[in-house]
Amino acid sequence: MKNSVLLLIVFFSIVSFGQTDDAKMLKSFYDTSLVNGKSYDWLNHLSNQIGGRLSGSYNAEKAVKYTKKELDKLGLDKVWLQPVMVPKWVRGAKEYAYVETVPGKSTVLPICALGGSVATPQGGLKAKLIEVKSFDELEQLGKEKIAGKIVFYNRPMKAELISTFQAYGGCVEQRYKGAEKAIAYGAVGVLVRSMNLRLDDYPHAGSMSYGDVAVAKRIPAAAISTNGAELLSTMLLLDKNIEFYFSQHCKQLKDVQSYNVIGEITGSTYPNKIMVVGGHLDSWDLGDGAHDDGAGVVQSMEVLRLFKQTGYEPKHTIRVVLFMNEENGLRGGKKYAKVAANKKENHVFALESDSGGFTPRGFSFDCSDENFKKVISWKSLFKPYLIHYFEKGGSGADIGPLKGDNVLCGLRPDSQRYFDHHHAATDTFEHVNKRELELGSATMTSLVYLFDKYEVIQNSKVKK
Amino acid sequence: MKNSVLLLIVFFSIVSFGQTDDAKMLKSFYDTSLVNGKSYDWLNHLSNQIGGRLSGSYNAEKAVKYTKKELDKLGLDKVWLQPVMVPKWVRGAKEYAYVETVPGKSTVLPICALGGSVATPQGGLKAKLIEVKSFDELEQLGKEKIAGKIVFYNRPMKAELISTFQAYGGCVEQRYKGAEKAIAYGAVGVLVRSMNLRLDDYPHAGSMSYGDVAVAKRIPAAAISTNGAELLSTMLLLDKNIEFYFSQHCKQLKDVQSYNVIGEITGSTYPNKIMVVGGHLDSWDLGDGAHDDGAGVVQSMEVLRLFKQTGYEPKHTIRVVLFMNEENGLRGGKKYAKVAANKKENHVFALESDSGGFTPRGFSFDCSDENFKKVISWKSLFKPYLIHYFEKGGSGADIGPLKGDNVLCGLRPDSQRYFDHHHAATDTFEHVNKRELELGSATMTSLVYLFDKYEVIQNSKVKK
Repeated sequence: MKNSVLLLIVFFSIVSFGQTDDAKMLKSFYDTSLVNGKSYDWLNHLSNQIGGRLSGSYNAEKAVKYTKKELDKLGLDKVWLQPVMVPKWVRGAKEYAYVETVPGKSTVLPICALGGSVATPQGGLKAKLIEVKSFDELEQLGKEKIAGKIVFYNRPMKAELISTFQAYGGCVEQRYKGAEKAIAYGAVGVLVRSMNLRLDDYPHAGSMSYGDVAVAKRIPAAAISTNGAELLSTMLLLDKNIEFYFSQHCKQLKDVQSYNVIGEITGSTYPNKIMVVGGHLDSWDLGDGAHDDGAGVVQSMEVLRLFKQTGYEPKHTIRVVLFMNEENGLRGGKKYAKVAANKKENHVFALESDSGGFTPRGFSFDCSDENFKKVISWKSLFKPYLIHYFEKGGSGADIGPLKGDNVLCGLRPDSQRYFDHHHAATDTFEHVNKRELELGSATMTSLVYLFDKYEVIQNSKVKK
Repeated sequence: MKNSVLLLIVFFSIVSFGQTDDAKMLKSFYDTSLVNGKSYDWLNHLSNQIGGRLSGSYNAEKAVKYTKKELDKLGLDKVWLQPVMVPKWVRGAKEYAYVETVPGKSTVLPICALGGSVATPQGGLKAKLIEVKSFDELEQLGKEKIAGKIVFYNRPMKAELISTFQAYGGCVEQRYKGAEKAIAYGAVGVLVRSMNLRLDDYPHAGSMSYGDVAVAKRIPAAAISTNGAELLSTMLLLDKNIEFYFSQHCKQLKDVQSYNVIGEITGSTYPNKIMVVGGHLDSWDLGDGAHDDGAGVVQSMEVLRLFKQTGYEPKHTIRVVLFMNEENGLRGGKKYAKVAANKKENHVFALESDSGGFTPRGFSFDCSDENFKKVISWKSLFKPYLIHYFEKGGSGADIGPLKGDNVLCGLRPDSQRYFDHHHAATDTFEHVNKRELELGSATMTSLVYLFDKYEVIQNSKVKK
């Protein structure tokens, strides 16, 4: 009896020592990030000295060189570039659009070509508009009413959804598949309401696909600002015959050589078990890509720097991967996973930050129940930092191809402001708050630390 | 046995029905606020059509009239103005400051007079600086080293504190009591590093006090931007004899008549039990007071509007109070509590929003354990809205004087960006995100609804 009480005391001492130890470690990550962090400086450079980093562009190349050079300075065990061929789509001269009520009376509207779209015919395209809110509506209207017109997709993001990503998910098919669908009904162009919950004057870019539609049959697709979409919709109520003109000069060129940027700290106990932390280096071209995904890039780099700064020596190999071409191809993510499979690398964990540099709220996890239970047991460690969101769900686009016998997760920052900036000219450094960014870096570091220390339970192990 | 099982089923049905009912009610508050809210429009008017609302100013008077008129439109049972005499401090002509290394070589620096400060002597004040980080340091230096100089308080807010309000709390004595303390050592002026975690060029206003120091002995006090403070500090390291010049023309005038703006929905069951929701109508003058506390004002108004819009008829009397003069006197809060005491009004609950219009994280509660247990039982209702912070703590300055046999609480929004704007020219409407503001309104409404429905446990009741 006495012995078991003693054992119990010893047991609880160990448990509480472990927790205190972890609490101290987390505090040192947060303190270092907030007082002596590097993420904000890095982001300043990426945003203001480089700028928008569309795949295949000169800026993307500069970003590869810059981040490689910065990783080289961190004293990691290995830093390298992983070659990957990426699509090169160029916007060309700025788009121009107006709506015309009677000839000569027109209002200029802010649009941008969607990534992957073809140009308008030389001299631009002018046609009547047909406004729809869904693909079903297209079907109901049929070819007769659509042929020869520009399909105007105007289903807004739902304001009542608390997760703005959910609201985005409910609308983005208009942008991605809108042209492919409209072509089937003889449309000559596509105009899509920007994926933005605010009413403002900024068109939001983003990728689109023509599916299997032959090159010759493709029609130009553009995004219009939310204010522009509202205006058009009101005008169409008054007069269905107004005409919309737009010209865009975008072009898909041949694939070009680019790179994923990778660095690692070799694990002290399990050098062959790899934990990845990453974001994507490419961005759209209208802003400087500070939130999408400059933030994720610098936060991921900061994870390794914080380990170095605080003297934490990970048991697993911790690898930062700055993926190229998330926005319009995902070639970087696919290539990374392919190389990993070819080399039979054992990836046990991957964390992506690609939801903006806002105040971190937690993580979503794509993992087994066993691993999720571990996560839940760490909740109290995160409480002082107001990190409370630990849910099962998706992870990140770039790490998706790594899915297998591992834990995938995504940082979940506060999402309210994200789509004010996403893919638009407003995605700029000035809209990133230093502290919010730095809290994200420390939060990611803390999770990687805990999974490194307490280890991922791989299914293959459980089965054996 | 069968009966008790049946009873249990009935019991759980009621419990789950109650929860479902509440969940639906909360959803209707959030939906209405996000889709069809009024807080953002109101804030736009307060910020852009009225602007900064310093107590006793013409703008403050306009804000009283505007909010009274808007409350009148809501169909409340009663709307009125509660007279309150307020201090009237005026800034006068813009302040001017420079630091001089050698005569003729000077750098202009951004400063602002602190609220309540006296002016500099005619022609301004030029003197050597003595930099300190604490009142203890003043004491160590002593009269000899301080007399005739300008005391430069330069203790920064601690970046490592997760709650920026805690960081503020650790520094604000420099601003509030700095002059009073420095006078005792013969200082001729006071310069205080702005209460701001960012490095930027904006001086932050805020109130200060001379304590019991006679009017004739008072010295001028100003805030300097954080960048300015850093520059001065570096210059002082190189040369202790640099001179600082500043001129300010502020003045304390006689008290003037102003008002708290009040509106209420009379309770259907307990008309004499009052639940207050409020914010403060006055603001500093450098910005337009959108975050501090235009946000709290419009969110509080929105609570009553959301009850009306959703058809919820409260059991208690729900009163919105827009307090005057929180910033430099708290006269509105004191007057409201005094009148309530004189009238023997029974206040059971008060909620203040005065921490900016950022994403709401939860509330802090100044209440008994019994009431706090109730709050904790509602946690799951708030989970879909990512509201997770329910802690004991302070409430709000304006409702503080109501402390007694009731529940006091404060909305706790995300605090990371607050002090970028607090009391500075950067506290403007464009820095308030519509959704973040509206989420706050709905969150407040939800708490008031739950306390209205499930009732506050008053200590006096427990004792009886």
